[in-house]
Amino acid sequence: MDNELKHLLEGVKSGEVSVEEAILKLKEKPFEDIGFAKVDTHRKIRQGTAEVIYGAGKTAEQIISIAETMLSHGQKSILITRLSSEAAVSVSRRFPLQYHEIARIGTIGALPPPDGVGQIVVATGGTSDMPVAEEAALTAEFLGNRVTRLYDVGVSGLHRLLAHLDDIMSARVIIAIAGMEGALASVIGGLVDCPVIAVPTSVGYGASFQGLAALLSMLNSCASGVSVVNIDNGFGAGYLANMINHLEAGK
Amino acid sequence: MDNELKHLLEGVKSGEVSVEEAILKLKEKPFEDIGFAKVDTHRKIRQGTAEVIYGAGKTAEQIISIAETMLSHGQKSILITRLSSEAAVSVSRRFPLQYHEIARIGTIGALPPPDGVGQIVVATGGTSDMPVAEEAALTAEFLGNRVTRLYDVGVSGLHRLLAHLDDIMSARVIIAIAGMEGALASVIGGLVDCPVIAVPTSVGYGASFQGLAALLSMLNSCASGVSVVNIDNGFGAGYLANMINHLEAGK
Amino acid sequence: MDNELKHLLEGVKSGEVSVEEAILKLKEKPFEDIGFAKVDTHRKIRQGTAEVIYGAGKTAEQIISIAETMLSHGQKSILITRLSSEAAVSVSRRFPLQYHEIARIGTIGALPPPDGVGQIVVATGGTSDMPVAEEAALTAEFLGNRVTRLYDVGVSGLHRLLAHLDDIMSARVIIAIAGMEGALASVIGGLVDCPVIAVPTSVGYGASFQGLAALLSMLNSCASGVSVVNIDNGFGAGYLANMINHLEAGK
Amino acid sequence: MDNELKHLLEGVKSGEVSVEEAILKLKEKPFEDIGFAKVDTHRKIRQGTAEVIYGAGKTAEQIISIAETMLSHGQKSILITRLSSEAAVSVSRRFPLQYHEIARIGTIGALPPPDGVGQIVVATGGTSDMPVAEEAALTAEFLGNRVTRLYDVGVSGLHRLLAHLDDIMSARVIIAIAGMEGALASVIGGLVDCPVIAVPTSVGYGASFQGLAALLSMLNSCASGVSVVNIDNGFGAGYLANMINHLEAGK
Amino acid sequence: MDNELKHLLEGVKSGEVSVEEAILKLKEKPFEDIGFAKVDTHRKIRQGTAEVIYGAGKTAEQIISIAETMLSHGQKSILITRLSSEAAVSVSRRFPLQYHEIARIGTIGALPPPDGVGQIVVATGGTSDMPVAEEAALTAEFLGNRVTRLYDVGVSGLHRLLAHLDDIMSARVIIAIAGMEGALASVIGGLVDCPVIAVPTSVGYGASFQGLAALLSMLNSCASGVSVVNIDNGFGAGYLANMINHLEAGK
Amino acid sequence: MDNELKHLLEGVKSGEVSVEEAILKLKEKPFEDIGFAKVDTHRKIRQGTAEVIYGAGKTAEQIISIAETMLSHGQKSILITRLSSEAAVSVSRRFPLQYHEIARIGTIGALPPPDGVGQIVVATGGTSDMPVAEEAALTAEFLGNRVTRLYDVGVSGLHRLLAHLDDIMSARVIIAIAGMEGALASVIGGLVDCPVIAVPTSVGYGASFQGLAALLSMLNSCASGVSVVNIDNGFGAGYLANMINHLEAGK
Amino acid sequence: MDNELKHLLEGVKSGEVSVEEAILKLKEKPFEDIGFAKVDTHRKIRQGTAEVIYGAGKTAEQIISIAETMLSHGQKSILITRLSSEAAVSVSRRFPLQYHEIARIGTIGALPPPDGVGQIVVATGGTSDMPVAEEAALTAEFLGNRVTRLYDVGVSGLHRLLAHLDDIMSARVIIAIAGMEGALASVIGGLVDCPVIAVPTSVGYGASFQGLAALLSMLNSCASGVSVVNIDNGFGAGYLANMINHLEAGK
Amino acid sequence: MDNELKHLLEGVKSGEVSVEEAILKLKEKPFEDIGFAKVDTHRKIRQGTAEVIYGAGKTAEQIISIAETMLSHGQKSILITRLSSEAAVSVSRRFPLQYHEIARIGTIGALPPPDGVGQIVVATGGTSDMPVAEEAALTAEFLGNRVTRLYDVGVSGLHRLLAHLDDIMSARVIIAIAGMEGALASVIGGLVDCPVIAVPTSVGYGASFQGLAALLSMLNSCASGVSVVNIDNGFGAGYLANMINHLEAGK
Repeated sequence: MDNELKHLLEGVKSGEVSVEEAILKLKEKPFEDIGFAKVDTHRKIRQGTAEVIYGAGKTAEQIISIAETMLSHGQKSILITRLSSEAAVSVSRRFPLQYHEIARIGTIGALPPPDGVGQIVVATGGTSDMPVAEEAALTAEFLGNRVTRLYDVGVSGLHRLLAHLDDIMSARVIIAIAGMEGALASVIGGLVDCPVIAVPTSVGYGASFQGLAALLSMLNSCASGVSVVNIDNGFGAGYLANMINHLEAGK
Repeated sequence: MDNELKHLLEGVKSGEVSVEEAILKLKEKPFEDIGFAKVDTHRKIRQGTAEVIYGAGKTAEQIISIAETMLSHGQKSILITRLSSEAAVSVSRRFPLQYHEIARIGTIGALPPPDGVGQIVVATGGTSDMPVAEEAALTAEFLGNRVTRLYDVGVSGLHRLLAHLDDIMSARVIIAIAGMEGALASVIGGLVDCPVIAVPTSVGYGASFQGLAALLSMLNSCASGVSVVNIDNGFGAGYLANMINHLEAGK
Repeated sequence: MDNELKHLLEGVKSGEVSVEEAILKLKEKPFEDIGFAKVDTHRKIRQGTAEVIYGAGKTAEQIISIAETMLSHGQKSILITRLSSEAAVSVSRRFPLQYHEIARIGTIGALPPPDGVGQIVVATGGTSDMPVAEEAALTAEFLGNRVTRLYDVGVSGLHRLLAHLDDIMSARVIIAIAGMEGALASVIGGLVDCPVIAVPTSVGYGASFQGLAALLSMLNSCASGVSVVNIDNGFGAGYLANMINHLEAGK
Repeated sequence: MDNELKHLLEGVKSGEVSVEEAILKLKEKPFEDIGFAKVDTHRKIRQGTAEVIYGAGKTAEQIISIAETMLSHGQKSILITRLSSEAAVSVSRRFPLQYHEIARIGTIGALPPPDGVGQIVVATGGTSDMPVAEEAALTAEFLGNRVTRLYDVGVSGLHRLLAHLDDIMSARVIIAIAGMEGALASVIGGLVDCPVIAVPTSVGYGASFQGLAALLSMLNSCASGVSVVNIDNGFGAGYLANMINHLEAGK
Repeated sequence: MDNELKHLLEGVKSGEVSVEEAILKLKEKPFEDIGFAKVDTHRKIRQGTAEVIYGAGKTAEQIISIAETMLSHGQKSILITRLSSEAAVSVSRRFPLQYHEIARIGTIGALPPPDGVGQIVVATGGTSDMPVAEEAALTAEFLGNRVTRLYDVGVSGLHRLLAHLDDIMSARVIIAIAGMEGALASVIGGLVDCPVIAVPTSVGYGASFQGLAALLSMLNSCASGVSVVNIDNGFGAGYLANMINHLEAGK
Repeated sequence: MDNELKHLLEGVKSGEVSVEEAILKLKEKPFEDIGFAKVDTHRKIRQGTAEVIYGAGKTAEQIISIAETMLSHGQKSILITRLSSEAAVSVSRRFPLQYHEIARIGTIGALPPPDGVGQIVVATGGTSDMPVAEEAALTAEFLGNRVTRLYDVGVSGLHRLLAHLDDIMSARVIIAIAGMEGALASVIGGLVDCPVIAVPTSVGYGASFQGLAALLSMLNSCASGVSVVNIDNGFGAGYLANMINHLEAGK
Repeated sequence: MDNELKHLLEGVKSGEVSVEEAILKLKEKPFEDIGFAKVDTHRKIRQGTAEVIYGAGKTAEQIISIAETMLSHGQKSILITRLSSEAAVSVSRRFPLQYHEIARIGTIGALPPPDGVGQIVVATGGTSDMPVAEEAALTAEFLGNRVTRLYDVGVSGLHRLLAHLDDIMSARVIIAIAGMEGALASVIGGLVDCPVIAVPTSVGYGASFQGLAALLSMLNSCASGVSVVNIDNGFGAGYLANMINHLEAGK
Repeated sequence: MDNELKHLLEGVKSGEVSVEEAILKLKEKPFEDIGFAKVDTHRKIRQGTAEVIYGAGKTAEQIISIAETMLSHGQKSILITRLSSEAAVSVSRRFPLQYHEIARIGTIGALPPPDGVGQIVVATGGTSDMPVAEEAALTAEFLGNRVTRLYDVGVSGLHRLLAHLDDIMSARVIIAIAGMEGALASVIGGLVDCPVIAVPTSVGYGASFQGLAALLSMLNSCASGVSVVNIDNGFGAGYLANMINHLEAGK
């Protein structure tokens, strides 16, 4: 903002820009500038490297059109979440699309080399939590993180989880994904000292009430360092994990 | 029922009882007989050894009056649950009452020697689950069971639970009591092969919703062999555990 | 674990195994050993006799692959729950599968001769509870239990239930299955002295809220000895009933 | 309405009342007349025999003032529901009040001789449902009905209920009151052919959720002829039962 | 029961029946006899005039088979509720079926001449409540009642309701059916002195939560004489209304 | 009403109408007159200009028939809400229908020139809230209002909202539409001094619970001047906004 | 903002203000200016005439301190909502406070003369809704509106409501307040053409669930022009009604 | 663990420890070692610097006893959360306790100098959220973090929030605390690129349902990087923020 603003004010000073014109310009765009401030810190992601399209509720045409704009602005990689297999077919006719069916994610362009500080562990209670887990894992990988997948390590078979204690303990941030009783987050949270992002899934039946049981269970975790995102929100967990994994000494 | 019935029918046959009288008698009491059938299998508990009074919502006077009737019928021990400390004072003026404050349980008479097949483990997630746990444990002890207490072995500190693996694995039936996220039942259920009775407690705050979170979590347990009783229902869990622990080869 | 461990330590003692190697080995697998401890008590079920595959959310290919592994390890019988009729067709092309359509259960191999202590009664409130009931009954039979089915004995027609009083009273454990108001568990629980496993079903409409009404009703049962599993969880009830019915004097 | 209206129109005809005046009068009060129509059918209750004051949220002074107005208009008996014992003391200083503590009901004046067609049975699942039951029973008695009380006949001790089968079967209308699992209404509804008014109570703990479990259970009753009123609404049930018990051949 | 019983006891007296045989017989069937007692009061409905089949969850074959049995036992009319149009086609191939599509009701045989004491009014808030209303109305007509239909008289257009005040006020019992806010029951309950059976419907969207809003609204009705049945339970309302409308002076 | 009434009374006065006839007439139609009173204030909308048909749950035939009646009574424009595209095809065969697919709205006849006092702003949190927003906007336009659309200005990208501060601040009434967290209403309500009508939408997944999260959020808005309509109720919001925007000095 | 901004830019132009200084100033306060824009439109309320303190959760000392600041800035009247009687005593020691106990509202200074366009009607279903109603009414009066109170006009006694039809129909905006079934808003909404602000109250018991039943009922109102505020939010309704009643032709 | 283990194995090797002894030791304590592994990473917190006691549900005596043990083990500072003012008085008699009344937190010993990487911002929607905010802030400070407090910056007065944009944008992690509608987390999450920990509070009334509205709102946040902890869980948020703020480059 500063440069643009400085330029404008210097124009006022020199008389090139009238006061009225300056008022108009200042009123017109201050909030874009706030946005710009944000975009600025987002630069690595938004400008030329990686960008995300939330595919749910968008037609293949809309997705293609957004992607085209992005690519024409120099974007090199695009992540499309909640992309149905039907829409994927249409999109892949227009771009070289990599489609990850389980995660319902499509990617255009190459994955960046991982530049996160440590590694992210994505753990699930059961195999049926995989779609959410893959959404989280692919999102994190797409944003430049090394990801270790530990699937089907639910607490009713504790030995499976404990067999991976080394992986769990060496993570910088862990995404714990579980439906049904959702206890995985608590158990992991009790084993480690790093942030644990809990993702309840809508997997289950009966009194799981589409993820409500897991959600409440995770919110009530007695383990410190556990926080929760929305039911099935693999993308949100992957994004937050990436954010934490890219926190640097400088800030 | 058979003897009484046989006697009646023989009376009809011999003419001592008229057909009309017999009809009347048969219509009058068949259901008491059904009840009696049940009382019969209840004999050990109900006749002379042990009996339970549910104290909630009863005045001290009502409790005293019921206890007097029981004792006058030969009852030797009485368990009073949900007994407030105020009522306990009144009751203890009339009978030699042992009052367990944490469990809000009063007992009259000696505990029976344990005659259950194995031992019952009562485990809790936290120390604040103790009132429910003691209600369960004392109920089971009062009904003739050996009880091992494992308190504060919640899943966010897994090592505490695992340190007692021997106790857990040698139990014939386990009562797993937890508020908050309620994951204890699943973890224990995954470690053992015996029935696990899960008791959600109303301990917690916020999104625990007075035990709802723990209840849903326990109902959704992925571990086989886990079933659930009502929130804070320590008595029910102790009673069911006793029932299972007294199942004999003969039936 | 002991043998393996003993062997390792003797290796250390004899110098065949270095201390460092031993540390590595001990760190690597202790939890598998815990699991093994469990497998051990599970031996009768897991080694060569009977094994269960939870079919929901698995493709026919995945099921076939798991079953193949099991059979190649000497498994003689396999129970597949929540198996869709479509998947059943695929699986039956590969193995001699018996498919129970109502229960959505497939079995490979012969049922074992019943070796449980007593008999299990499976009772339902209505005919529409049958899918859940059959899942429970077949699971119990598959695990070696004699099962008596009492269907459509709901409490709004009490005489149907009471007409089967003998069956009910001679059971070692009862599975009470009901949707709508779920009162069956309470009524049965009041008639018998054995454990009653209540299964709410999602049968019903309106304020049954997909089984919630029955679930709450069952959790609030005034009858002692009643515990509850998840809505529609016939398998869980059958498994727990089997567990209770196989409790022996020795433990 | 007719007489008043006729009088007015005759005034218009004769010229005593101007057209404008008549318009004004007709616009002013048509709805009071509708109200009057209702009061008319209410005559037996409202004019001189019996009247009800809902005491909740009213001060003793307000209750006294309303009662005074009623008595001064010729009312002979007054029923005051939800009357706290404190307010009862104040009210009894002013009027000869009969206070029924359990039901929190006060009555002024004598009960009418019963003139209902048949008898009303009030049944409860437990003794703690008595306050609601007495509110229902006293309301019905106050409105001129014979009432049979069957308390503590809950379904977990079926023999108690069946022992009173004659009472139950001879009722013209039954009020079934229960907290906890609320199954009483279904069981009674399955035994009889008369209307059953179900009243859930807030008695219970944990997953009874202040009467919600009983409410849902009763709404889902499989028995025909069962309908439900609000939780703890003893008055409403007594009033409706009275209404049904006074239905005559003529209407 | 008496006759059968008398006969049996006389057999005992005369020696034709041994005491043991009599015991066996008495144990075998007492509960059927209780059931019989009920069937007895049901006679008018069940024996030769009218019978009901709940069609939901039954195949056309099952319905046909039940109907055949009924007809072969002398049943003249049969009411089939929740009958899909597909099943109706199959059933109508076998019997002369009248199918009421909106109500999803099929009838076999002629309607009986109305023999209820008064008339039943079925009122709905909107036109979309018609399926439930027709289920109620047809059920009542099928059981021998005169029914007046007042559809689309919801409280947001009060004049429509008030225009039918005469119908409403001359009813012996009213069924008030509404989705959305469910206020119809309260308004009608405030206008009349006869029992009002409220039926919430699942009609609506958003915060109607499939009938929950209407259900709660109706349970909280301030009007006396209102009781509630399950969401969309037109049959239950029609059946209860019929019961009330057939109450006679004699009982 | 006055004219009709006056005429009647003058008839009575002159003797042309008998008192009895007058009574009958007065009793017959008072409520229609009340309705008429309302219709009167509705005149601009109902008589010849604009009328609304709620299309949900109506067949194309029913809609056509209602529209024909309206047009034959002089109606010039008709708005049909919740009109499926299939029904639209049928309706358009009969009338020149304009179909707005996103809003599922059909209009017959020309839009009126806007005659509201100010302008209505329709703002949405995301693009997926558009169907509800268009229903609101088209309803308002159809009733004679100028509408400014601000779509996708959700609070997680505040600069987009603030960039339109001028539009927001110049509105006479604002409709704030959002699913997910529903914060838009609060933020807008805090920025402006005009009434804000909040519309939660069922857009979202997981813990949005079909609009419940947005609904609760909006009801709890800390901003003054915010009120809420039902989930997805775009029509209701548009109608209320129109009402407020047409409030005149005179009343 | 423009003047300040213009001044600053002219300073830049003239050289009095350096570019760097200007950048700093522009970055520092843009959002205060936005706030100011709002305060501006709030002028009538905030500057010297009327101001509101939300008393809930504030100590008497905090309230006094806020009030002192307001008065010292020229405020003439202050409205304090949710003021406990204890706090009122303390506040009244410092200022001449008028305390309205039922509404828990305190006012300092004189009420302004009403300057709203029309009149606001505040209607309640029962007398126990009065605290919320008085909060609404006093808020509206305090902000300069004429208010008509119609209390206890609930829909179960329709004649009471209809007797006040003139008041209702002459309102510019109506606040409909009701607990229990909440139908008042729908009935009133169906009678009038002006905006209706519905306020559910927590009055009631059982299935009213502290206002939830009334809230859902009101959200589902079929009447157009009805919107809803939070349970018991009398202030919010009064404030919004005032806003609508002060809408002028000019905007 | 390694050292202890190595020592044991060397004992085995050397013959000092028998194989049987070693087996016993290895079976006895492996899980304590896991715990130890965790304690190890916790070292900075647990050994000598800072330790936390959760005071809720503990008596003053229990708290004193735990604190004494900690201090005797070399602990220098102790944080006691949820400490009632009564218990604080008792504890302060024994130790030099600093009691923070609003946060209900007591601290023994000096705060450590802040050693976190960046700063933590704690923002609240209203002043009544302060208890939760102070719990979070004091926890974070106690664990060695610089904390900036931004209270009462709720979204209904956006300018207050935006006025602190610099603070917000310079944070390494933000704790956003709000009751009522909970929109604060979304708005902040949209402004920054750092992790946002959302804490719903039980502040509010009516449809806030003790924090449920804020909880759902926060879970549905459209802003990336937002995760949620339990209602009122200030400690959990402070602890997690500390964890994130101490993440170092090395891991």
